[in-house]
Amino acid sequence: MKIVVLKFGGTSVGSTDRIKKVSKIIISYIKKKYKVIIAASAMSGVTNDLVKKSREISNDFKSDEYDVLLSSGEQMSCALIAGRLNYLGYKSRSWLGWQIPIVTEGDFSAARIKNIHKKNIINYLKSGGIPVVAGFQGVNSDYRITTIGRGGTDASAIMLAKFFKAKKCIIYTDVDGVYTTDPNTIKKAKKIKVISYEEMLEMASLGAKVMQPHSIQDARLNRVDIDVRSSFKRSKGTLITKRKNISTNKIIRGVSFTKNDAKVTLVGVKDKPGVAASIFEPLYKNSINVDMVVQNISSNGKETDLTFTINSEDLFKTEKLVKNNKKINFRKIVVDKKVSKLSIIGVGMITTPGVTYRMFNALAKKNINIIVISTSEIKISVLLNKKDLKKAVDALHKEFKLEK
Amino acid sequence: MKIVVLKFGGTSVGSTDRIKKVSKIIISYIKKKYKVIIAASAMSGVTNDLVKKSREISNDFKSDEYDVLLSSGEQMSCALIAGRLNYLGYKSRSWLGWQIPIVTEGDFSAARIKNIHKKNIINYLKSGGIPVVAGFQGVNSDYRITTIGRGGTDASAIMLAKFFKAKKCIIYTDVDGVYTTDPNTIKKAKKIKVISYEEMLEMASLGAKVMQPHSIQDARLNRVDIDVRSSFKRSKGTLITKRKNISTNKIIRGVSFTKNDAKVTLVGVKDKPGVAASIFEPLYKNSINVDMVVQNISSNGKETDLTFTINSEDLFKTEKLVKNNKKINFRKIVVDKKVSKLSIIGVGMITTPGVTYRMFNALAKKNINIIVISTSEIKISVLLNKKDLKKAVDALHKEFKLEK
Repeated sequence: MKIVVLKFGGTSVGSTDRIKKVSKIIISYIKKKYKVIIAASAMSGVTNDLVKKSREISNDFKSDEYDVLLSSGEQMSCALIAGRLNYLGYKSRSWLGWQIPIVTEGDFSAARIKNIHKKNIINYLKSGGIPVVAGFQGVNSDYRITTIGRGGTDASAIMLAKFFKAKKCIIYTDVDGVYTTDPNTIKKAKKIKVISYEEMLEMASLGAKVMQPHSIQDARLNRVDIDVRSSFKRSKGTLITKRKNISTNKIIRGVSFTKNDAKVTLVGVKDKPGVAASIFEPLYKNSINVDMVVQNISSNGKETDLTFTINSEDLFKTEKLVKNNKKINFRKIVVDKKVSKLSIIGVGMITTPGVTYRMFNALAKKNINIIVISTSEIKISVLLNKKDLKKAVDALHKEFKLEK
Repeated sequence: MKIVVLKFGGTSVGSTDRIKKVSKIIISYIKKKYKVIIAASAMSGVTNDLVKKSREISNDFKSDEYDVLLSSGEQMSCALIAGRLNYLGYKSRSWLGWQIPIVTEGDFSAARIKNIHKKNIINYLKSGGIPVVAGFQGVNSDYRITTIGRGGTDASAIMLAKFFKAKKCIIYTDVDGVYTTDPNTIKKAKKIKVISYEEMLEMASLGAKVMQPHSIQDARLNRVDIDVRSSFKRSKGTLITKRKNISTNKIIRGVSFTKNDAKVTLVGVKDKPGVAASIFEPLYKNSINVDMVVQNISSNGKETDLTFTINSEDLFKTEKLVKNNKKINFRKIVVDKKVSKLSIIGVGMITTPGVTYRMFNALAKKNINIIVISTSEIKISVLLNKKDLKKAVDALHKEFKLEK
């Protein structure tokens, strides 16, 4: 069977009008002789409303009932999609997690899909039906409803594609693909036709809001090719696949950036073994994520300046924690919210020397000051003053010929 | 086990605040050492919203998916109630139709409960848990979600009470019981402490909006005692039970009335065998319910006047059907929307002669004209001019000493 999995997220099914539009997309695949499996999210707004109600009921809502509550959202949207397909003359029905079943393991609200029983769905596909599978939900070995903690319906779609050996897994969303950089900021941003899981992971965790990093990781581990495209307009999307499948020879795939970083510098820290650990311990315990770190050892070797970046939302709490930290000794603390992290990402840099030089040189030519640098195998990130951001993205987009 | 079934309808769980209040009611039974089974409806408004969405999707929404859609409402409210009970320190969980299972037969959207498997719930009760059962829903032999056509969550509660041999089945609603007549119209209306199924059936179908006739009939057939009371205020409700259990010696239990009747009179109908059937056939085919009928045979035996009542909403359609009816011949049609049907109900009238006389005499003394009369074993109904209604209810309420 030539199976395709189509995933529709919350905004794609955000109204009954949207569900009508989405039904047409589904039918277009049927007309191309695909066997189609749908994975659907709750209509946008529904899940938030349910979460709100749970908070009104309890500030510590028990996770088993939380999953029963939230999973009702997907039940609604699946019934409406199947109802529309029926209306248009197609055989279709909703399949809830427990009906297939999609068996999960792990805690409520953080379950992982362990197995998807194939028989019911295969029989239904063979009978000419279009199964509309409720995303985000499964059932555990006690026949209780569970929800998937990481990646939600994206994860459901990826696992459906894996278990049913789908030819394609298409994630329909409200953006039409992954761009070389943010198209809202840089007019010359170009849609990327194909990108590796690893590059996409870096792009996603660095600010491109197309898919959650967890879902991309799921796809990578299960070797499922993902096609991201828009349910709002007809256009080719972006294929996320393994490196081997990518022939296009780009050193750098994209430029991404953040807008909500804050920089914290501790000046004149009394240097002794373990001081960095002492600084970061209370932050870790308060779930504050420290991103870039740089330490300048002082000339006399007794004092050091330590700079790190955090999400600016955590700045107030971080300052308090640092100031109240009895284990460390420093002269002063300097904070700066007017910074941005800019990154270039590309698997090509592994085999191409000189990328770092080209990046720094391009920025230097525009008189842009680099505050902090951090690198990984396939990305180089620099911290800049926020005022330089647009100029910097422009320069790098041009330097690495991303508009071509 | 001393089991009690508590049913909470839509307005009783209409907001998270209401769910908090209802949780306190539930706990009060736990404190009295009852084993409690909850049957819950969807939060008021939720089902209507889902119905609206289904109509936007299709004017002929397929009933299997309609049931999937609507049953999500009860899933939500059950999770929220169980979540609240957990928060208050009680062991509780939601039980959906398929989890128990509650097995239904018959068509989607019109299913009937055939069996309730007891093992899961009994074990859960024994473990000290409070099961919150989703009303209105079950599962058929194909493991598809069904909804109960007649009586909804009331029917679920009654069947739970039957299968688990509950000591009590308490229907919590937004009124605090059944009254001798409408308390909004007649200030002296009194709450009825105990009423037979048969009387309640007449009261319900004649306008008292406490429970649907179908549910009362379910309770009667399954010999389940029903206690109707308010979840909004603390007060004793009304017990609906079999006649044998009722010792209080009242001839008349209550006075009920309708406000939306219309009277249609066909004057000078050419009388021949089968003429009444010819008049009513098109009404029946158009689902128009004819209530009271009276025919006055004319002196010459060739012409007759025929009067009947219908719901005033059907008046326009009825006039059209009668005028277009080629099978009948009459001189003119007279319609009147300013009429009301007034009924007295009581099993006592079976064994007590003179009730009819007392009723007619009481009305006559107030100069109230009776247009049509119809009777059954336990009720007498009369059609009146709407302007006389309040005076008539007052007179009968007094005549049969219902305020005592």
